[in-house]
Amino acid sequence: MQVSSATPLSTSELDRIDAYWRAANYLAVGQIYLMDNPLLREPLRSEHVKPRLLGHWGTTPGLNFLYAHLNRIIAARQQEMVYITGPGHGGPGLVANTWLEGSYSEVYPSIGQDEAGMRRLFTQFSFPGGVPSHVAPETPGSIHEGGELGYSLAHAYGAVFDNPHLVAACVIGDGEAETGPLATAWHSNKFLDPAGDGAVLPILHLNGYKIANPTVLSRIGDEELEALLRGYGYEPYLVEGDDPAVVHQRLAATFDEVFDAIAEIQRRARIAGDTSRPRWPVIVFRTPKGWTGPAEVDGLPVEGTWRAHQVPLPAARGDAAHLAQLEAWMRSYRPEELFDDSGAPRPEIVDWLPAGDLRMGANPHANGGRLTRDLELPDFTGYGVKVSAAGETVAEPTRVLGAWLRDVVTANAPYRNFRLVGPDETESNRLGAVLDVTDKVWRGRIDDVDVHLGPSGRVMEILSEHTCQGWLEGYLLTGRHGLFSCYEAFTHIVDSMVNQHAKWLKVSRELRWRMPIPSLNYLLTSHVWRQDHNGFSHQDPGFIDHVVNKSADVIRVYLPPDANTLLSVADHCLRSRNYINVVVAGKQPQPTWLDVEAAALHCARGLGIWEWASTDTGDPDVVLAAAGDVPTMEVLAAADLLHQHLPELKVRVVNVVDLMRLQPDTEHPHGLPDAEFDAIFTTDRPIVFAYHGYPWLIHRLTYRRAGHDHLHVRGYKEEGTTTTPFDMLVRNDMDRFHLVMDVIDRVPGLARRRATLRQRMVDKRAEHREYICRTGEDLPEIRDWRWPAP
Amino acid sequence: MQVSSATPLSTSELDRIDAYWRAANYLAVGQIYLMDNPLLREPLRSEHVKPRLLGHWGTTPGLNFLYAHLNRIIAARQQEMVYITGPGHGGPGLVANTWLEGSYSEVYPSIGQDEAGMRRLFTQFSFPGGVPSHVAPETPGSIHEGGELGYSLAHAYGAVFDNPHLVAACVIGDGEAETGPLATAWHSNKFLDPAGDGAVLPILHLNGYKIANPTVLSRIGDEELEALLRGYGYEPYLVEGDDPAVVHQRLAATFDEVFDAIAEIQRRARIAGDTSRPRWPVIVFRTPKGWTGPAEVDGLPVEGTWRAHQVPLPAARGDAAHLAQLEAWMRSYRPEELFDDSGAPRPEIVDWLPAGDLRMGANPHANGGRLTRDLELPDFTGYGVKVSAAGETVAEPTRVLGAWLRDVVTANAPYRNFRLVGPDETESNRLGAVLDVTDKVWRGRIDDVDVHLGPSGRVMEILSEHTCQGWLEGYLLTGRHGLFSCYEAFTHIVDSMVNQHAKWLKVSRELRWRMPIPSLNYLLTSHVWRQDHNGFSHQDPGFIDHVVNKSADVIRVYLPPDANTLLSVADHCLRSRNYINVVVAGKQPQPTWLDVEAAALHCARGLGIWEWASTDTGDPDVVLAAAGDVPTMEVLAAADLLHQHLPELKVRVVNVVDLMRLQPDTEHPHGLPDAEFDAIFTTDRPIVFAYHGYPWLIHRLTYRRAGHDHLHVRGYKEEGTTTTPFDMLVRNDMDRFHLVMDVIDRVPGLARRRATLRQRMVDKRAEHREYICRTGEDLPEIRDWRWPAP
Repeated sequence: MQVSSATPLSTSELDRIDAYWRAANYLAVGQIYLMDNPLLREPLRSEHVKPRLLGHWGTTPGLNFLYAHLNRIIAARQQEMVYITGPGHGGPGLVANTWLEGSYSEVYPSIGQDEAGMRRLFTQFSFPGGVPSHVAPETPGSIHEGGELGYSLAHAYGAVFDNPHLVAACVIGDGEAETGPLATAWHSNKFLDPAGDGAVLPILHLNGYKIANPTVLSRIGDEELEALLRGYGYEPYLVEGDDPAVVHQRLAATFDEVFDAIAEIQRRARIAGDTSRPRWPVIVFRTPKGWTGPAEVDGLPVEGTWRAHQVPLPAARGDAAHLAQLEAWMRSYRPEELFDDSGAPRPEIVDWLPAGDLRMGANPHANGGRLTRDLELPDFTGYGVKVSAAGETVAEPTRVLGAWLRDVVTANAPYRNFRLVGPDETESNRLGAVLDVTDKVWRGRIDDVDVHLGPSGRVMEILSEHTCQGWLEGYLLTGRHGLFSCYEAFTHIVDSMVNQHAKWLKVSRELRWRMPIPSLNYLLTSHVWRQDHNGFSHQDPGFIDHVVNKSADVIRVYLPPDANTLLSVADHCLRSRNYINVVVAGKQPQPTWLDVEAAALHCARGLGIWEWASTDTGDPDVVLAAAGDVPTMEVLAAADLLHQHLPELKVRVVNVVDLMRLQPDTEHPHGLPDAEFDAIFTTDRPIVFAYHGYPWLIHRLTYRRAGHDHLHVRGYKEEGTTTTPFDMLVRNDMDRFHLVMDVIDRVPGLARRRATLRQRMVDKRAEHREYICRTGEDLPEIRDWRWPAP
Repeated sequence: MQVSSATPLSTSELDRIDAYWRAANYLAVGQIYLMDNPLLREPLRSEHVKPRLLGHWGTTPGLNFLYAHLNRIIAARQQEMVYITGPGHGGPGLVANTWLEGSYSEVYPSIGQDEAGMRRLFTQFSFPGGVPSHVAPETPGSIHEGGELGYSLAHAYGAVFDNPHLVAACVIGDGEAETGPLATAWHSNKFLDPAGDGAVLPILHLNGYKIANPTVLSRIGDEELEALLRGYGYEPYLVEGDDPAVVHQRLAATFDEVFDAIAEIQRRARIAGDTSRPRWPVIVFRTPKGWTGPAEVDGLPVEGTWRAHQVPLPAARGDAAHLAQLEAWMRSYRPEELFDDSGAPRPEIVDWLPAGDLRMGANPHANGGRLTRDLELPDFTGYGVKVSAAGETVAEPTRVLGAWLRDVVTANAPYRNFRLVGPDETESNRLGAVLDVTDKVWRGRIDDVDVHLGPSGRVMEILSEHTCQGWLEGYLLTGRHGLFSCYEAFTHIVDSMVNQHAKWLKVSRELRWRMPIPSLNYLLTSHVWRQDHNGFSHQDPGFIDHVVNKSADVIRVYLPPDANTLLSVADHCLRSRNYINVVVAGKQPQPTWLDVEAAALHCARGLGIWEWASTDTGDPDVVLAAAGDVPTMEVLAAADLLHQHLPELKVRVVNVVDLMRLQPDTEHPHGLPDAEFDAIFTTDRPIVFAYHGYPWLIHRLTYRRAGHDHLHVRGYKEEGTTTTPFDMLVRNDMDRFHLVMDVIDRVPGLARRRATLRQRMVDKRAEHREYICRTGEDLPEIRDWRWPAP
């Protein structure tokens, strides 16, 4: 690893950067401990200390040190930079730095740069009604929470894609570095275009410990660590030490070198047209955990150990020795040199910092909505499948969508603000039309046999759902647009990331200074009902259940029943802001039910009666409802059977696109008022509901509705294997024959009168089973079924 | 990378291993395509080909090649070995090999080693009523499904922990290698004890492509790849080529070398007492995707490209050219040399294979229940907290559990069959007592300041939930026992892994030859209500919702309300088989409600009326129910308020430990019969239910119960930040005051008569808000509340 021996800082430069660092450390300690006497103008007393001491000191001094030195680079080079705080637990550090640079007080005017402001700054931290202990949406300059750990590097890459002048300085904790998502995110450098994208500077912060253990990367030795980082494709630079004066020089010299290296890589790509994959720099920053904090507490070593992780002096309020040690610790930063009489930072502490939007707490990329440009969206109705009679035209919904997305890519190419991500499935999910106009980004070796790969492009594929999600989140949080296309079952891989993004959005919406960002759009295709090649391990529709636990303000779920409704839904999602939109749609050929104008109207309503498929005239005997493409087809096939065999039965067919319409309007902004719900579903007639996912979700969404006692839901109940499409329905009792049986069983009097028809349905299921076990195929009458011509 | 130039195989050895490989390939192709004419005794005709062609050819020939050569090693060294198939899509390969070695027909006698058996073998693959396309529970010798990708290496390590004579040969696809979980699982070598554990031989199978893209690791060049693997701490050996004869010699020579290296590492650790971390070998196996398959189809290159991924001749049934090409392909393996007249493998093809339990399809470790030894469990009642009056004794539930777990560790130390895993939290979750008797395994450098680390031990901590989960799954699937202790919110990180394990268990239970394995036990502590240090990003109780979507046969959820019930639940879980047990319990000090005998009885019932807290005598005015430790405390505090202020109100207090008791007995084996449920909850009185998690789950579980219309649930509704414990309850309307309001609002007539009391509750909430914003602490009367002495 390269170790710089240069000493670029003059004594005065070193003094001022060290003073800044001391100020940031002082403010961080103050946040963790104090609720009064912020400037230590009087001796520290017990009542100045918060009763509940919460927060994480250990990582904070390192974060502050890096922030200080990045400020030097920004000021010297007028470099646009965002700071990604992998160790988000170091929240007090980022609050401290943004307060010092002034960006904090700009968004929170009540926390001014004076003694009163400092008191509030201290008190509010981890305090009821205040700010959380982590870097969070509340923290200016942040796009990354860092509480869960694992996603900093993918976020950093996402932020710099298509931002050629931006550098994301990404601090990675050595705890975080043990996570899987982080371990593979290093490979993002194979997907970065040095010409069209910005740069990521990963800074692996080895402070050696987690909560109670050393970290893996701090204990494998420099030789293995260097090999690992080289293996990931980086050029490692080591900065190590515990003497601040020495480390200041080393880090300054190393930053000078690596920012020169970044500039040179970009020059070669942008001016010289070099398309090879560069070896980007990475910094290994090895400093003590809890640096400058108490060396020992109660006779046990603290600084440089895991004991510095949270609050090193836990009894500071109650124990005089701890209190004295806290005061000595805080005074060791010499606050009187750092803050003036009013409590403001002394000019010499901050007059060298970057100004305006170059301050990392004010960088507009970290409040991405400020920079968002609406997508140019071609009129989707021009891409619709022609439908002169319901179900007449067979189409693959995602392939139809692909053509529109191709033109979305083209229309927005000049603005470089739209990307598609996915593990490996743009083609197999039949969105391949986009590859007519753009490439999949690939900076590895490209062979003659390869197609659609290029050094830059709008499509990004890596077999890591975590990385796809992290990239896209970073891209959206910096104000751009995108779509994640994924196998439905494996979207669960990012459940926890979705949680964090949903929480981020919920809090952001409550912050007036955070501008709305484009929505996180999922296209879940290759869904549970059509895992023909894969079977049981690939069957799981539960991602919907997972997301609907999050705040109703940010969650939207769409189940377009055909190609034209998918177009309408996709158009809507790409226009929206601050949501998580989950769209489930198949890729297999299937009938198209609505022409594109009717589709747009149906999607705008979110759900509705399909009168063309119904035989009631306002007073149905039974309601057949569906949500999802396969359930819709099956409900219509059941309706067809009922119309044929029970023509006197008044059947109403209802289709649901926007799942949240089912909830009461008191629970979700899209919820249908009770009166409208009752008018559609009735309050007293049996409702047989075929649903794409786990059936209980429909009960959960509707249990307060008047007609709930009459609701009977079919869905996926965890039965499956590698089998035929229709057999999947039979195994889960959602096939047309079973739906007819359900109707017969539930409409009063029918079971007795129509026992023969019911038995015929039972026989059809048996016939199906026998046929597929013999031939491996579904019965031709099932494969070829179409809605009858009018 | 080391490349062997030795040629250890004699011509006859090479011929026979190649013939075996051809046989396995032939059988794999047959499974994908044929439903008749399995031995090609007649010219191949369209009707011999399955109508639906499903499966994955691309990875299969490589898997077969490796299986063949591992057989040579096993036979030569009598080495116990399991085969972990990372590219599980290569299912037909594993089925083929186990059929050739005879282990397949032993567990499926109808699939004999003859022509009829081969026909069934072919037909059943990816066929309704047959076997799935992936390596799956149905595949003898497998402990790893491999459909989702990412977990093979962690499973392999889990399998060899405490199995010193076992080698897990772990084939890692280069697609899988891009996933996060796999990328960090390489570091498992820092947690392997060469003396007490077996060995993992990772084989990175670089066939270059995923579904539609090249793979990252195949395109970064040998230099970076070697650095990466060395950085992970391995010694890489490269085997490369496309000429089978050459690759046979290279792989044989390399296997000889690496198995010698493994033996030498183990000798040094076991005989010479070397405790340093060895550099274990890894093999990079670079062969063409779809090797020996069609070179070109329809004029496009297939072998060696992504086009070989699934079914290379998709029109073999309908298109004469494809059919002819299929026949030529299959005949290229010269089936007449491989199978005798009866259809059995010719003796010379299989007579050199390992025998009995040494066959990888018959290895008992891969059917771990065969080897399971019950844990020795000390009588948990001896560890109970003394309780002479309800709530009198304050205890930290997980700390109490820790003492019992310590003695579980000790009692089972001789059998080396119990491990605790977790990201970094054994201590912080207050299970630290176990470290009195065992270490945390750590093969990195150990410094003087470190405590409880050692080269071997029962506790395993790495900051990767994926790795923890993968290790534990591998450990359980090979028949041992364990417990995963984790932050509740971050258990979502392994949602998708839990899905796969639940699916594995569901299918395994249906296979008579698979013996039950110990349950997967989660202890979710540091739960949603007590994230004092962390706040909103760490608050998510939805893992319960996630698991209850899986098959009721395998899912159990327990919410013990105090330390003594936690002991009872833990004892039950560690005795159980084939379940996923989710236990949620706090680590903070809290009252203990039941003495240990009452706790055992309450847990055996799963739910019940707490008569000591109730004032009804069989006919309550209201039911106050709770599930979870914090809700239980709050419900009791509300009951206390009601008893004081509304002494005439007959209040019944119900506590739920086993959440699945709430479901009807038709839905879950633990479900309470309706009559019992109605007797406890009533059918017509208001039920105010305080639940640990998202409230709608309780509705979902109970919506079929007679009293559901009267059920009102409070729970976490995604409101939180860093605040006080009681404020978390207030924010989510589950505090004692709000519960009293709920009762007043719901018991007929009360709202009008007791408006003053209701207002007093509103005022108490306001008083609380004011107090915490001023002091940062909860009101003393709330912190100090105790159930009144009798």
